[in-house]
Amino acid sequence: MHDIQRTEIGALGEFGLIEHLTKNNETRQAGTILSVGDDAAVIDQFGRQCVISNDLLLEGIHFDLMYTPLKHLGYKAVAVNLSDIYAMMATPTHITIALGVSNKFSVEALDEFYEGVYAACEQFGVDVIGGDTSSSKTGFIISVTAVGEVAPDKFVTRSGAKVNDLICVSGNLGAAYLGLQLLEREKKIFLENPKIQPNLENQKYLVGRILKPTPRADIAEWLEEAGILPTSMIDVSDGLSSELLHICNSSDTGCILYEEKVPIHDDARAMSMEFQVGAMACALSGGEDYELLFTIKQEDYEKVARHNDISVIGYITDKSEGANLLTKGGNKHKLTAQGWNAFGA
Amino acid sequence: MHDIQRTEIGALGEFGLIEHLTKNNETRQAGTILSVGDDAAVIDQFGRQCVISNDLLLEGIHFDLMYTPLKHLGYKAVAVNLSDIYAMMATPTHITIALGVSNKFSVEALDEFYEGVYAACEQFGVDVIGGDTSSSKTGFIISVTAVGEVAPDKFVTRSGAKVNDLICVSGNLGAAYLGLQLLEREKKIFLENPKIQPNLENQKYLVGRILKPTPRADIAEWLEEAGILPTSMIDVSDGLSSELLHICNSSDTGCILYEEKVPIHDDARAMSMEFQVGAMACALSGGEDYELLFTIKQEDYEKVARHNDISVIGYITDKSEGANLLTKGGNKHKLTAQGWNAFGA
Repeated sequence: MHDIQRTEIGALGEFGLIEHLTKNNETRQAGTILSVGDDAAVIDQFGRQCVISNDLLLEGIHFDLMYTPLKHLGYKAVAVNLSDIYAMMATPTHITIALGVSNKFSVEALDEFYEGVYAACEQFGVDVIGGDTSSSKTGFIISVTAVGEVAPDKFVTRSGAKVNDLICVSGNLGAAYLGLQLLEREKKIFLENPKIQPNLENQKYLVGRILKPTPRADIAEWLEEAGILPTSMIDVSDGLSSELLHICNSSDTGCILYEEKVPIHDDARAMSMEFQVGAMACALSGGEDYELLFTIKQEDYEKVARHNDISVIGYITDKSEGANLLTKGGNKHKLTAQGWNAFGA
Repeated sequence: MHDIQRTEIGALGEFGLIEHLTKNNETRQAGTILSVGDDAAVIDQFGRQCVISNDLLLEGIHFDLMYTPLKHLGYKAVAVNLSDIYAMMATPTHITIALGVSNKFSVEALDEFYEGVYAACEQFGVDVIGGDTSSSKTGFIISVTAVGEVAPDKFVTRSGAKVNDLICVSGNLGAAYLGLQLLEREKKIFLENPKIQPNLENQKYLVGRILKPTPRADIAEWLEEAGILPTSMIDVSDGLSSELLHICNSSDTGCILYEEKVPIHDDARAMSMEFQVGAMACALSGGEDYELLFTIKQEDYEKVARHNDISVIGYITDKSEGANLLTKGGNKHKLTAQGWNAFGA
């Protein structure tokens, strides 16, 4: 490659890069309803709407086979894609899977991976409709495409939040990150002294959060049944801070997030002390929780308050006020996206 | 991985592996019309049909950046996916692209890649609706998903060929493989003596066939306009032999292929002599031509004969007769799939 000019990819950051690469993207198809820049794309097919998302999982970047059972990996590869579809308030129906596999893998190892894939598909009622497997010289590569359906114009993007809307999140945050730190620590100990076998028996919750995340189909379904159409929605893959900024940027708003309202699991709180990182920092920047973050109109507050796995954690403000965290001590901090940067150092 | 039993992936072969992995695949969605095992999948969306294909291209396996200009690679990554959609007699409308990129890549290099992507999209009227880019420690990884549309039940699979149907192919075969051999030879010469610059000026056709394949949108469109609905269809990615066997196996038939009818370009014939490989062997087992191979009813012969870029190369027989090649000398050879085996030695 003979570059006259050379700009490091890291200089743009992940989101800057995507913006840069897609700025010349033209739309030719009348059926393109929502393109690059949300959890999934929406296309019109003969007057009805279809939601599509495509994710790539790479060994050494997105997962470590040393502590990731293949069955869990198969489950997770499907789960994270379905999470993108649910984050549009759509229902996933089909997936395709393309794999790059090294010769080190046995057929039995792939069977294990597929067991996880099929388990996720069974749980969420999704069909595997395509499979492509080729050899890889460089680790295990997983590409999953998920397709879903949604009633016309009932999909929810990142860009519909309005001033005074309430910010809600499902489940709890930060536990997946702490589970990962735990696995990384045990791996290091094991590599230094293979006689010490990791004991993770007491940390099943945290480890489960990183190895086997559950897409929140239940939340998307409950919202629909309750007659609540969120004004915006995103799934928490990069951390609360980063996802909330996505909503604010796309919706052209600011926000106030209350530290004391952010839901954190007891196990996560305990482990964050052991690691001497703030539990709140894990929730804000950890990522991989695959919970749903969404905004609702104030009038829907009573309904949402009845659900015991949804927390109201703040509200949307005018853009001029910025995106802020209000701490327990009453201090205001600017929210910054410190989420997992794919091209960071 | 603690396998009790260990079966090498190579022992099953690419197609055996896919069959093995998908044998427990259950269909739950009423909308699943055509699943794993064809060029693309077909799903019913609200009574209309949508065609989906997902391919993975890996550096060192599917392409060599030493002689593949990034713009061509971007074009080809889209082209090979669109080819799968045309091979269903469907019209591609949208693609998503997920990339794994090493830090060695500059933004300018990615721009070049995307220039090719956009060029292909413009040529075929397709929209890019999703982009995901993450870092890769292990070379350049490209995952493209293509979506197309087709009138209800007008898609064409591999499994509809009937006894006495005519076998047709577009364009010519074997040239892409010879182009690749040429590039590999020049690379070897260059690596041994970097002062010798490759001169490929006279071999533009062959090199173009491997670096910038054109999906045969024109053939699919012409067939539709001419009112010909092929009984089966596949695109030639692995070589004529392998693709024809796919059609015979899926359709439960045999076939006769006439050596003298297989279209081979003059440049390919000349180069095959230089490399001392048979031009016919290149056509049968070379692959990457991305032409359309299809079968038609005998009554459509007159129409097809008028098209000067479609060759009738044989006919479908009863399964009991097997799949055979009839040579110019009048000998009968059993066709064997020697196509590119992803898990070969």
